[in-house]
Amino acid sequence: MNFLSDNSAAPCPEVLAAIGVAAPASGPGYDGDAISQQLDAAFGALFGCECVVLPVSTGTAANALALAAMVPPYGAVVCHEEAHIQVDECGAPGFFSGGASLLLVRGEAGKLTPAGIEAGLSAYRGDAHQVQVRALSLTQATEAGTVYSPAELAALGEYARGRGWKVHLDGARFANSVAHLGCHPGDITWRAGVDVLSFGTIKNGGMTAEAIVLFDLALADDLRFRRKRAGQMPSKGRFQAAQLLAMIKDDVWLRNAGQANAGAARLAAAAGDRVMYPVEANEVFVRLRAGEPERLRSLGFAFYDWGAAGSNEARFVVAWDSSAADIAALTAALAG
Amino acid sequence: MNFLSDNSAAPCPEVLAAIGVAAPASGPGYDGDAISQQLDAAFGALFGCECVVLPVSTGTAANALALAAMVPPYGAVVCHEEAHIQVDECGAPGFFSGGASLLLVRGEAGKLTPAGIEAGLSAYRGDAHQVQVRALSLTQATEAGTVYSPAELAALGEYARGRGWKVHLDGARFANSVAHLGCHPGDITWRAGVDVLSFGTIKNGGMTAEAIVLFDLALADDLRFRRKRAGQMPSKGRFQAAQLLAMIKDDVWLRNAGQANAGAARLAAAAGDRVMYPVEANEVFVRLRAGEPERLRSLGFAFYDWGAAGSNEARFVVAWDSSAADIAALTAALAG
Amino acid sequence: MNFLSDNSAAPCPEVLAAIGVAAPASGPGYDGDAISQQLDAAFGALFGCECVVLPVSTGTAANALALAAMVPPYGAVVCHEEAHIQVDECGAPGFFSGGASLLLVRGEAGKLTPAGIEAGLSAYRGDAHQVQVRALSLTQATEAGTVYSPAELAALGEYARGRGWKVHLDGARFANSVAHLGCHPGDITWRAGVDVLSFGTIKNGGMTAEAIVLFDLALADDLRFRRKRAGQMPSKGRFQAAQLLAMIKDDVWLRNAGQANAGAARLAAAAGDRVMYPVEANEVFVRLRAGEPERLRSLGFAFYDWGAAGSNEARFVVAWDSSAADIAALTAALAG
Amino acid sequence: MNFLSDNSAAPCPEVLAAIGVAAPASGPGYDGDAISQQLDAAFGALFGCECVVLPVSTGTAANALALAAMVPPYGAVVCHEEAHIQVDECGAPGFFSGGASLLLVRGEAGKLTPAGIEAGLSAYRGDAHQVQVRALSLTQATEAGTVYSPAELAALGEYARGRGWKVHLDGARFANSVAHLGCHPGDITWRAGVDVLSFGTIKNGGMTAEAIVLFDLALADDLRFRRKRAGQMPSKGRFQAAQLLAMIKDDVWLRNAGQANAGAARLAAAAGDRVMYPVEANEVFVRLRAGEPERLRSLGFAFYDWGAAGSNEARFVVAWDSSAADIAALTAALAG
Repeated sequence: MNFLSDNSAAPCPEVLAAIGVAAPASGPGYDGDAISQQLDAAFGALFGCECVVLPVSTGTAANALALAAMVPPYGAVVCHEEAHIQVDECGAPGFFSGGASLLLVRGEAGKLTPAGIEAGLSAYRGDAHQVQVRALSLTQATEAGTVYSPAELAALGEYARGRGWKVHLDGARFANSVAHLGCHPGDITWRAGVDVLSFGTIKNGGMTAEAIVLFDLALADDLRFRRKRAGQMPSKGRFQAAQLLAMIKDDVWLRNAGQANAGAARLAAAAGDRVMYPVEANEVFVRLRAGEPERLRSLGFAFYDWGAAGSNEARFVVAWDSSAADIAALTAALAG
Repeated sequence: MNFLSDNSAAPCPEVLAAIGVAAPASGPGYDGDAISQQLDAAFGALFGCECVVLPVSTGTAANALALAAMVPPYGAVVCHEEAHIQVDECGAPGFFSGGASLLLVRGEAGKLTPAGIEAGLSAYRGDAHQVQVRALSLTQATEAGTVYSPAELAALGEYARGRGWKVHLDGARFANSVAHLGCHPGDITWRAGVDVLSFGTIKNGGMTAEAIVLFDLALADDLRFRRKRAGQMPSKGRFQAAQLLAMIKDDVWLRNAGQANAGAARLAAAAGDRVMYPVEANEVFVRLRAGEPERLRSLGFAFYDWGAAGSNEARFVVAWDSSAADIAALTAALAG
Repeated sequence: MNFLSDNSAAPCPEVLAAIGVAAPASGPGYDGDAISQQLDAAFGALFGCECVVLPVSTGTAANALALAAMVPPYGAVVCHEEAHIQVDECGAPGFFSGGASLLLVRGEAGKLTPAGIEAGLSAYRGDAHQVQVRALSLTQATEAGTVYSPAELAALGEYARGRGWKVHLDGARFANSVAHLGCHPGDITWRAGVDVLSFGTIKNGGMTAEAIVLFDLALADDLRFRRKRAGQMPSKGRFQAAQLLAMIKDDVWLRNAGQANAGAARLAAAAGDRVMYPVEANEVFVRLRAGEPERLRSLGFAFYDWGAAGSNEARFVVAWDSSAADIAALTAALAG
Repeated sequence: MNFLSDNSAAPCPEVLAAIGVAAPASGPGYDGDAISQQLDAAFGALFGCECVVLPVSTGTAANALALAAMVPPYGAVVCHEEAHIQVDECGAPGFFSGGASLLLVRGEAGKLTPAGIEAGLSAYRGDAHQVQVRALSLTQATEAGTVYSPAELAALGEYARGRGWKVHLDGARFANSVAHLGCHPGDITWRAGVDVLSFGTIKNGGMTAEAIVLFDLALADDLRFRRKRAGQMPSKGRFQAAQLLAMIKDDVWLRNAGQANAGAARLAAAAGDRVMYPVEANEVFVRLRAGEPERLRSLGFAFYDWGAAGSNEARFVVAWDSSAADIAALTAALAG
C-alpha cells in the first residue's frame, strides 16, 4: 500500500488515450504539429488570459528553465527553505541560470509571507558585492501540503512587484490547490501577480509532460532557445502536448486532484491532532507515536519518514489513483 | 508525401504497446521500478559487454550530457564541421559542459579521418592559453547519410586514445548504421574504442526516449547527478525504459532501420549519379536539376533544401514507416 | 579617521619597492619570468611543505577558483552563513563552479564546529536529487574577527575528511590569525587538513595580488586552466609574484598583521563589555549605545553599521597603517 | 634580443609613477576613490562621447566580460578564425557567457569583411535549433598586424547593426592602430558602430590594467555585476585606474605605440617582399628562408614560429621599449 509519493502513480486513462491518438505523424516535428499548436489557446482559455505554453519533460526542467529566464546569472531567487528547487533538484536552478543563487527564507507550514521575507532578508544589502534578487519563487500547494489563498498570493505578488522581482509559482501540485480552493486558476496565478507557472501533471495522473505557462509573454523568446539547448524540445512534441491537453480537457486535472485531496482528508481525520499542518492538498504529515512507524510498515504501508531522525514524523501522499481500500486501511491503522 | 525527416514519424507498435504495459505504477519512482532496472542488463546483452544506460528525453540531451561528462569546462571536443552537436543543438554542449568548445574539422562525405583531424588541428598548440581537447565526437550514421566501417571507427578510436581523448558516438541513426553494416553493435562501439554512445530511437520508430550508453563505467556516477540537475530524470522513468527495451527486443530497432534503409536505397537508385554521397543509411542527398525542386514540391513531395542557396541540393529522409507508395512515387519522380 | 575596512589601505613600502624592481622585462610573459618562478619554493619554505602557488588579482577570484576546482558543478560547499563567499562575492562560487551551491550553517562568533555542521545538515540526505557536498570552506580569521585555534581547525578538517570533503580556507585575514596565534602557518593549514588556502595580502598591506596556495597538488593542473580562462593569468605575472614574495619575506606579513591586531586590541579594551565577539584579529564589533553611532560619526570616525537596522551594532577595522593617533582618538571616544 | 611579444615589456615611467601616487589610501575601496572616479570623464574626453569605463586585470577578462554582456548564453559571436578570443583565451568567452559559441569566419590578412561574413555564414539558418548570432567581434590591430581603416570598420558596423548584432572591438593593440591611422579614436569605435571596446594598455607600456570601454551605456549595469562576480573588481581599484589615466594623459599611449610601430616598419623594410601582410602596427610576419630561423636564433634573436610546422614563417613583435640597437641588429640580420 503505497503512500510514498504521487510521482509514480499510473497515468489516467485520458492521458493514455491521448498518446494513442497522437501516434501517427501529422506534419512537421518539434512544436509544428497540429496538437502542439493548440496549447497556447487551450491554456489561455483555461486561465482566462493570453499565455505561452512550453512543454518539458520534468518538473525540475520546468522550474529551472523558468527561473533561468527570470533572473540574470548573478541574480538570486527568494524561496522557502524547504522549496523543492532548493532541496530536491540537485542544483538545477544554478545550472540553468548560469550560477544564480537561492536565498532561503523560513515560514510556517511551508508558506512565505511578506513579513517573513522582510525578516529573512534583513541583512541583505543588494549592493554590487551581492547577488541581485530578481525573483520570488512560491510553491502551490506547498511542501507542507498547505495551500496559499488567493489573498495570500496576491499580497506576496504585490510585495515582489514593489521590489522589481518577478514571481514564479512551482505548481507541481497546482491542481490540488485549485481543487482545494475551488477558485478560478487565474485567481492564484496572473491575477495574483504570477509571471510564470510550472504547471504540473505528472503527480496528478499525467505521464511525462509538465508545462511552463508564461503569463509574462516577453519571456517567451528567450525561453524557446533555452528550452532547446537544454534538450527539452522533443522532435515528437505532440506527445507532450497531447498529455497536457488531455489533462485540462473536461477538468480531468481537477477530477484527479479532487480524488487525491479527498483521500488525504480522510487520512487527516483519522490522524486527528497528530496532523502537523492543515491538510489542504494530497499530503498528510503526521507526528506518529513511538513505535508507530514500524507498526505501520509491518502492516504493509509504505511512506517516508520526515523531519529529523527519530522524530517519528511521517509523510503520507495520496495519489489520484490510490485505492479506496488502501486509504481505508491506512485510516483504520492511524485511528487505531 | 513527407521526406522531411524521420524525426516525427509514428512510434512503432511495439513501443506503443510498451507504454500501455508500463502504465500501472510498480514500485518506486525515478529509476527504481522493475522496468528501469532491466536496462543495464538488456543493453549489456545487446552490446556484449557491461554497460550503464541512462535514458533521456532527446538526442540533444543525450549528446550534451555525454560530452559534459567527458571534458572539463575548459575542454574541447573535436567533431565534424557539420556535426549535429555543432549545427543543430543551439549550443547545448557549451551549456551542459559549462563552456567547453567544439573544434571543427572538415571531412568528405560527413566523415572524419585521423589524417583529416591532424590537418584540421595543425595550428592547435594545446598550451595553457588554449582549450584542452579531451574528446572526439563522431556521428554514426553521419550527417551525410554515410556509415563508418568498423575499421574506420577503430582507426579513429585508436587515434583518439593515443592522445588521451575519450570517444563519443552520436548514434541518432545508429540503428541504420548497424542495419547497413550487418555487424555486431559492439564492433562499432566499445570494440572500436567508443566510451559513450548516444543511442537513438526517436528517429527509428521510438517515441520520447533516447539512451546514453556508457561503456566507460567510470563516468556513470558523475552522469547520474548531471542528468538529474538537467531535468532529465523523470519520476516515471519506466516510460522511457519501456520504450528502449521494446526497441531492442526481437531486433525491432534493426527491422525498423532496415525498412528505412531499403527505401532510401530505392530512391538512390532512381537518382543515379545525381546522388551526392554513398547512400548507406536512410538519407539521400541529391543534386537536383534546375527547376526540379519546384516540380517535386508541386507533385506533393516535402523535403529540405540543402547546401548553399540556389544549389538545388536536396535531402530526402526515409522513415521506418514511409509508405511504399510514397517511396515509389518519389522514385518515379526522381527518375523522370 | 577611517575604520571602514582594511581593504583600501596603502600598500606597505616593501610591496611598492618590489613593483619597481619587477618593472624591467625579464624573460617570457605570464608565469615564465624569474620572479614568478620563485613562488612555489618560497611559499613551500614558509609553510613547511610542498605547495603550488597561483596568484590572482582579488580575494573573490582566489576563493571562487579554489572552490571550482574542489567541487563538481552539481556539488555543494558547506560554509558559515556569514561567509564572505556567500555574502559578498556576488555569486562568484556559483559562476566559477558552473552552478554549485553553498549550504549555509550557523555558528557562534563566526565559527563552525563539527557538531554545528551536523545539526545544520540534519535534513540533508545526499541522494541523487540533492546537491553533493564535496567541500567545507572555513574563514580564518572569521567574519566576526575571531580566530580558530589549530585544534579547532584540525577537528573540522578531520570531520570533513571523514566525509570525503575537501577543505578550503578563506584567508583574506590569514596573516592576522597567524599573528594572533603565534603558530606556524602549517599548523592551521595543511597540518589541519586544509587542501587549498586563499592567502590574502591586499587587506594586509598588499596592493593587487592574492595567492591560491595548493597543498593538494593534484588540483594544480585543473586550476591552471581555470585560472587562464577566468582572465586571471596576467601576461606580466611578475608584478603579482613580486608583491607576494615581498609580503612573506622577512615576515612583513606578520609585522603588518601584528600592528593591525594590536590596534584592534586597544579598541577592544576601550569598548569593554560592549564588544560582541572575542577580538582576536583586526576587527572589533561593538554594541554601541543609542545615539553613539551618530556621536562617533560627528567626531569624524568612519565605520560600518552591522547587524539589523537599529541594532546600534558597529564594526571597526584596524588596518596595518591605521595611525596611532586615530586609534587613540577612537579609543578615547569609545571609552567616553 | 626579445621579439617574442610586447606582452611582457616594462611598464613605461608614467605608469610606474602613477602607481606611487595612488599608493596612499584615499577614501572608500573598490571604485569609490578619487582616481577611479575620474575614469569615465577622462575616456569620454578622449573618445569624444559619453562612455563608461570598467577596469579589469587582463585582456582575456576584458574580452570575455564584454561579450558576456552582449550575447545570451545560447548566443553566438562571429569572429575571425584566428581571433585571440578563439585561439588564445582557453575558452573564456564560453565561460563568461554561460556557454555561448564563436562562429569562425575566414578573412585575408586577419581582416573580416561583410562579404566574407556573408559567405562564412551561408549555411547558418538562425532557427531555434541553432545558436543565435548577436554580436560581431573584430580585432584592431588584427592578429596579422594589419589595421582596419575607419571605412572598413564602418562597413562592418553597418552590416552588424543591420542584423541586430552588437559590435565588440578587441583592442589589445588599439593604440598601435590609432597611431598608424592618425585618426581620432572615435572614428574607429563608436562612430563606426562599435558598442564595446577592450582598450588594451598592457602590451603598450601598461602594467596590470586593461579597460572595458562601453559606448553602449545600457550594458553598464549588467557588466558591473558580472565584473564583481568574476573577481575583477579589486578593492584597491585606484591602482588600475591610475594606470589607465596615466596611459591616456598627454598621449602617452600614442607615443608608446608610435615607437613600436616605427620599429616594426624598419623590420618590414628589411624583410622586403618576404613580409606576409602589410605591416601597419607593431607585428611583422616574415616568410623566412630555409635555415634562417635557426640562423637568427643563433644570433640571439627570440621570436615565435608561426603557421604550420616547417613553413619557416616567423612573427616578430616590437614593443614600446624595444631598443634601437636590437631593432637595428635584427634589421641587419633580416636584410643579410
